[in-house]
Amino acid sequence: MKVGDLGEFALIEFIADIVGKPSGRDLILGIGDDASIWCTEQATQLGTTDTLVQNVHFTLDTATWRDLGWKALAINISDIAAMGGEPCYALVSLALPSVTDVESIVEFYRGMVELARKFDVDICGGNISSAPVVVINVSVIGKASDIILRRSAALPGDQIAVTGYLGQAAAGRKMLQSRLKFDSETTAFLRAAHLRPYPRVAEGQILVQHGVKAAIDISDGLLSDLSHICKASRVEARVQLDGLPIHPMVKAAFEKESVGLALSGGEDYELLFTAKREIAEQIKGLMLTPVTVIGEIIRGEPGQVTLYNERGRPVEWGKRGWEHFKTIHRFYLRSDEYDCGLS
Amino acid sequence: MKVGDLGEFALIEFIADIVGKPSGRDLILGIGDDASIWCTEQATQLGTTDTLVQNVHFTLDTATWRDLGWKALAINISDIAAMGGEPCYALVSLALPSVTDVESIVEFYRGMVELARKFDVDICGGNISSAPVVVINVSVIGKASDIILRRSAALPGDQIAVTGYLGQAAAGRKMLQSRLKFDSETTAFLRAAHLRPYPRVAEGQILVQHGVKAAIDISDGLLSDLSHICKASRVEARVQLDGLPIHPMVKAAFEKESVGLALSGGEDYELLFTAKREIAEQIKGLMLTPVTVIGEIIRGEPGQVTLYNERGRPVEWGKRGWEHFKTIHRFYLRSDEYDCGLS
Repeated sequence: MKVGDLGEFALIEFIADIVGKPSGRDLILGIGDDASIWCTEQATQLGTTDTLVQNVHFTLDTATWRDLGWKALAINISDIAAMGGEPCYALVSLALPSVTDVESIVEFYRGMVELARKFDVDICGGNISSAPVVVINVSVIGKASDIILRRSAALPGDQIAVTGYLGQAAAGRKMLQSRLKFDSETTAFLRAAHLRPYPRVAEGQILVQHGVKAAIDISDGLLSDLSHICKASRVEARVQLDGLPIHPMVKAAFEKESVGLALSGGEDYELLFTAKREIAEQIKGLMLTPVTVIGEIIRGEPGQVTLYNERGRPVEWGKRGWEHFKTIHRFYLRSDEYDCGLS
Repeated sequence: MKVGDLGEFALIEFIADIVGKPSGRDLILGIGDDASIWCTEQATQLGTTDTLVQNVHFTLDTATWRDLGWKALAINISDIAAMGGEPCYALVSLALPSVTDVESIVEFYRGMVELARKFDVDICGGNISSAPVVVINVSVIGKASDIILRRSAALPGDQIAVTGYLGQAAAGRKMLQSRLKFDSETTAFLRAAHLRPYPRVAEGQILVQHGVKAAIDISDGLLSDLSHICKASRVEARVQLDGLPIHPMVKAAFEKESVGLALSGGEDYELLFTAKREIAEQIKGLMLTPVTVIGEIIRGEPGQVTLYNERGRPVEWGKRGWEHFKTIHRFYLRSDEYDCGLS
C-alpha cells in the first residue's frame, strides 16, 4: 500500500502505534494533537535540528528506510552530545512522494525507535506532508548541566583530540556509491559507519564532567569542523597528519586515500574536543571509545587549520570538507572530492 | 549573488546577523554552535513542527520570500496558540536549490523576524542544506500553564465556536492561483489572508484562562479539523451552515463558493474550540477578534461532522478539507476541490 492510498491522517495513527506510549518520564502528550507537551524542572535546555534530503544526503539505492530512521535521529542526538547534553524529545517531519510504500514508513520509524530507545528519547510529535523527493527533518530537545561544550572555548596550548576513528563513514559511502567489493566483515563495518552512526552521548558527558570546555561533532569533516572551532575561538590549529586515528579496515580498503577520507569525509559523528594536556590524558583512560590526540591549538590566524607531516613540515591540503552549495550538490558525486593529493 | 556562490557557512553568518542578538530572556546561545541553549524554570513545555514544500504548500510565483518567512513561523506559532501556550524558541531548517538568491534568504529571515518580534520568539538555531526544491521546516518550543487546550476534551452539549472568519485564506490562494482581479482592498485582504496568517496566541490564552478545554487551529479546513476534535473526543458535531462566519469581502468576491471555502479551504489558522454555552458567551465579550458559535457537540458517531441548512435539514458535503496524499498533491490544483455543491 502506498501512502497516497492510506492518506496523511491514517498514516499518523500508524506512526503513533509504532512509536508507542511515551516512556513515562515527563512527556504528557505525544503524537496526535497540535503540539506535544512535556514537563520540565528548572533546567538548561538544548535544541537542535537537522535535515536529510534524498539524493543530497542519501539515496534509496543504498540506504534502507530503517537506516534512514536511525540516521536522521542519530545526527541530531550527536549535536546534543557535542554540547555535553542528554537528548530527551524528538519532533520528526517527513515530506514524502505519495507513491512511497507505507511499509517503508513503518521501517523508517522502526529504525528511529530502535535508536531512540537506546538513548531514552521520546519521539513526541512531527509532521507529514507530500513532496517530490523525500526530505526528513528532525528536531531534538535535550537537557544539560550548567557546563556546556562550546565551539568558542578552545584556548592556545590545548590539545586537540577525537573520539573513535575518522573517515569510515565516508569510506562506507564511497563503497556503496562505487559498488566496491570487500570481505563481508569490512563491508558490514563500512556500511554501518555510513548509515548507522552512533552518537557519542556518554562521551560528551565525560568531557563535561572532567572540565573540557570546547567540542564539536564531526559532521562536515575533521578539517571543516576543526576550523569551526578555531574560528569561533579565534585561534589556529596544528594537526599531525600521521597521528590521525584511521581504522585498520579503512586503511586496508582505501590505503593512501584513507587520509583524505579522515580529513574531509565527514559524517563520522565522533566528538572533536580541545583540552589542557593533563585533562586530555585523563580522558583517554575514562572512555570505552579510543581517544586520540591529533594536534594542538595555537595563537594565530583565527579559523586556520595547518597540517603537518611526519617530518614536521606543513602540508597543503585542498579540500576542507562538506559544505552545502559550495561542494558538489548531489550526494553521489560527493566522494569524487576526496581524490586530492597531499603535497 | 546565489547561495551557491556564498556557501553554507557564510550564509549561516548572514542569517545570524539578520536574526540578531537574543531577546535577553533566557536564551544563552543562539545560532552558531551544534545546538542552541536556553534556561527554563519548572514549566509545562510545548513542541511543534511544520513544513512548507515548494509547489505543494506554496509557489514562488505568488508568494514572496518575506511572506514565506512569516508564514513558516506563523503556522507553528498557531499550533502553540491552539494548545493555549506561548511560543518561545524557533529552530529553522531551510533546504534550498543552490541557485537561490542570497537576497531571497535575507528577505525570508526578515519576514520571519518581523513575526517573531511580535510574539517575542527567539529564532535560536536551524540548519541549511541543498535540495532540488525549497523545503522549509520550522520547530517551535513554547510554554503553557498547567491547563492546556486539547483535541480530546470536547463534551456533548458543548457549543462549537471559531475565532475570526473562515475561508479567506483559501480565497486568497484561489485569487492568486487563478489570477482573479478584485478591487485593491479585496486583493490586499485576500493576499494577506493566504500569505500572512496571524496566529491567535492571545485568543488561545483567553480560552485557557476562562475554562475552555478543547481547541484546534484550522489548518486543514473547518470540517477536517472539527472532525479531528470529534474523533479524539469520541463525539459528533452538528454545524449550522448559515451561521459560518464568512467575511463580507469573501462573500462578495466568491458568492456561493465562499461556503465551500469556509468549510474545506484550510489555512485560516483561526482557533476552533468547544465550550459550555455560558463560557462560549462570556468569551465572545472578551476577545477583540469576533467569535462565532457555529454548532454543537452531541453524542453520536465519533469523528462525524453533520451539516445543517437554514431549514434544519442535514446537508451532504463531499469534501473534507486538505489531507496530504489523499488530496490532489500540487498546491496549484488544490482549489479545484472547492467547487462541489450543497445538496
